[in-house]
Amino acid sequence: MKPPPIDQETVRDMLRTATPDRVLRFIGQRHPADIAPLFKGLEPLEIRQLFDILFSARRAAKALKELPPELLPDILAHIDDEKVGRLIVRADPDDAVRFVDGLPEQRRERVMALLDPERRAEVRELISYPEGAVGRIMTTDFMTLLPSTTAQGAIDKIRERGEMETFFYLYVVDETGKLVGVVPLRNLVIAPPNRTLGEMMIPDPVKANVLMDQEEAARLVSKYELLALPIVDESGHLEGIITVDDVIDIIDKEATEDMYKMVGLAEEDRVFTPVSRSVRMRLPWTFLNLLTATLAASVVGLFEGTLHEIIALVTFMPIVAGVGGNGATQTATVIIRGIALGEFEFSSAWKAVVKQVSVNICIALAAGAVIAVAASLWKGNPYLGLVLASALIFNLGLMAGLAGAVIPLLLKALKFDPALGSGIIVTGVTDAFGFLSFLGLATLFRGYLI
Amino acid sequence: MKPPPIDQETVRDMLRTATPDRVLRFIGQRHPADIAPLFKGLEPLEIRQLFDILFSARRAAKALKELPPELLPDILAHIDDEKVGRLIVRADPDDAVRFVDGLPEQRRERVMALLDPERRAEVRELISYPEGAVGRIMTTDFMTLLPSTTAQGAIDKIRERGEMETFFYLYVVDETGKLVGVVPLRNLVIAPPNRTLGEMMIPDPVKANVLMDQEEAARLVSKYELLALPIVDESGHLEGIITVDDVIDIIDKEATEDMYKMVGLAEEDRVFTPVSRSVRMRLPWTFLNLLTATLAASVVGLFEGTLHEIIALVTFMPIVAGVGGNGATQTATVIIRGIALGEFEFSSAWKAVVKQVSVNICIALAAGAVIAVAASLWKGNPYLGLVLASALIFNLGLMAGLAGAVIPLLLKALKFDPALGSGIIVTGVTDAFGFLSFLGLATLFRGYLI
Repeated sequence: MKPPPIDQETVRDMLRTATPDRVLRFIGQRHPADIAPLFKGLEPLEIRQLFDILFSARRAAKALKELPPELLPDILAHIDDEKVGRLIVRADPDDAVRFVDGLPEQRRERVMALLDPERRAEVRELISYPEGAVGRIMTTDFMTLLPSTTAQGAIDKIRERGEMETFFYLYVVDETGKLVGVVPLRNLVIAPPNRTLGEMMIPDPVKANVLMDQEEAARLVSKYELLALPIVDESGHLEGIITVDDVIDIIDKEATEDMYKMVGLAEEDRVFTPVSRSVRMRLPWTFLNLLTATLAASVVGLFEGTLHEIIALVTFMPIVAGVGGNGATQTATVIIRGIALGEFEFSSAWKAVVKQVSVNICIALAAGAVIAVAASLWKGNPYLGLVLASALIFNLGLMAGLAGAVIPLLLKALKFDPALGSGIIVTGVTDAFGFLSFLGLATLFRGYLI
Repeated sequence: MKPPPIDQETVRDMLRTATPDRVLRFIGQRHPADIAPLFKGLEPLEIRQLFDILFSARRAAKALKELPPELLPDILAHIDDEKVGRLIVRADPDDAVRFVDGLPEQRRERVMALLDPERRAEVRELISYPEGAVGRIMTTDFMTLLPSTTAQGAIDKIRERGEMETFFYLYVVDETGKLVGVVPLRNLVIAPPNRTLGEMMIPDPVKANVLMDQEEAARLVSKYELLALPIVDESGHLEGIITVDDVIDIIDKEATEDMYKMVGLAEEDRVFTPVSRSVRMRLPWTFLNLLTATLAASVVGLFEGTLHEIIALVTFMPIVAGVGGNGATQTATVIIRGIALGEFEFSSAWKAVVKQVSVNICIALAAGAVIAVAASLWKGNPYLGLVLASALIFNLGLMAGLAGAVIPLLLKALKFDPALGSGIIVTGVTDAFGFLSFLGLATLFRGYLI
């Protein structure tokens, strides 16, 4: 079924001992998607060797484009400018942009200067679109035909044109280049030879503006189950297409981003990212976390008197904080994923908040009952159980639901990513509020607890 | 570009006041993907009305299949058996299975009994595949041809066959039904009319066994950038296909699962899932969380003596626990996402563990230095700063990296989902270990801290 993976250790051995020709014979016939993973975890010298072998067989661009974009910088860093330039010239336009994006700012200019003027202009146009815009990742390798073309004429044109990256729909444009319809390839196949595209096209197809957010465009493709989405400029001229395999990449990237941003990870921080880069990317979030934890700690500091009097309280603090923290993270996860999958409109967000708080209140009542009984039996003081349960209900029931639902929505309203650091923020809030409610109640009723 | 969404409030008003015909005229021409979201958040009576209107126009199956599967049960619950039966008969085979899956066990049998024998056998076969197997979601609506068929013969067959759900490749089978090759539609278009499929097919194409895990099959489609994946039985007979839009659904589902399972959420628990169902699904995890939090609490209980002596220690406990917890969750997230995206082989997992622990040690050294200085200044005792920093380095540096990396890998090795409750487990571990290291060190050096 699935072709067996090429054994990376064998390839490493061969890079060390065999001739480039033998290595190429061993891996050259494999699908680029099977070759790409070989680059992961290689030493710089080995990266250069493997690249050179693929490059000489004109397979380097196809293989490298299969790598997740966040791994590209670490590989391109070991390849010299001239070769990167030739890689960009040989690549499909959208892959060329991906390679250019994988270079540091300064090097980018140097490499661009090595390109022929035509390709340079092409790449410049694509990278002129803002990061995250669908124009930046579209392919400009597509085929347009006039409405007056016949089915047979279209088939002849396809035959002439030869290899194309992707090909599921014929795009029909008017004389000015404005997109007026699409013809699925299937319809072309079964059409009478002299029927015109204008007669058989689907008029006014789903399309996206070059500036549309990539995720939004991906959701259009997924919603309408398209294989490719035409991308147009302000005046409706066809500028490019994105295909369903791009869409899968975008959806994967989006999901990773959501998971990552919640806990304060940068998207480039992967299993085998060099330690120093991972550390640099995680440090700012660790300091934010130190700050939120210090906030929670300072709340505890307020109650040192009560704690000194009733030291047993200390034992229960982690319960109120921990359970509240997970409740808040659960709620934030539901909201963040709901936003990503378009499960609710921003205008009905308040309903989502009400619902999440209700769920948390029910859960807190159940958990509170259990913990009240357990703590009463353990410490032999029913008042302690009551205080603990009340604090849990405040923290898990009210604060966790509220913070978990409101913070991602607030981040979104402020035009941030709704997931951005939300895990760190909501657990900071529930830690602080958990301590406040538990130790506050304990101070109020301390007469009963001693 | 994107058609404006149908306003749900307008539709609700119309359901209340207008004739079914008028409602149908208002929504009937829209894409099923635009109609489906209207079902969200309706009252039971309204659900029945909207369903009946779509059903009478034979649009109900197409619309309902666009809903995320976890929303289906709540809608089907309001439709009577006979109509659900007719819905299943009219649906494409793979959608039929989705509807059957949306019924509770008991009702399923009742509805199945209403189907015609042929459709019943078809559905029974598909639902006989285990949950999560690709056979369960494949469509059996595909076209096979013999290698001896000519290009023109194939085009004639396509014309005869008419409407098909999805259609990008022709599948070529031998006389016994064994898959021997595929012909991309594009190649068919440009082939000379008398060329045979056997001459132009891609032999031995990428395929999946009916029992292959859905996620694994989805990753095959994404890796090789296919539009459809043929699904075969043990002997290589073509049984069905999955298409790229199924793959997008699987990838979305997989990402949701990963995010959800980490924090103890069931996949069906969405923004607008009824409160009672959300509560039922989250409660078991809340109790697990109570348990892990109690474990951490009992560690604190061991040190009540030290705490009573030096009450200032209490203030710093949340810092050691909180920062360790987030470090562990970060690491677990990187590992879980790395497993999902196939970023590393299980055999090289130890490298990933070493890398993650290294990152955490570096971060812990930096955070430890900051907190040592801050705590020393705040409480005027450098030893306190040293104890705190050491505990942070133990907990965030060693335990967070180790637990965060090892627990998901261990879950996977035990054939669980690597994300399953991992957020709850790793934060429980770092809470407990954080208190142990901090209060343990403080007890050892308490002479310097008083």
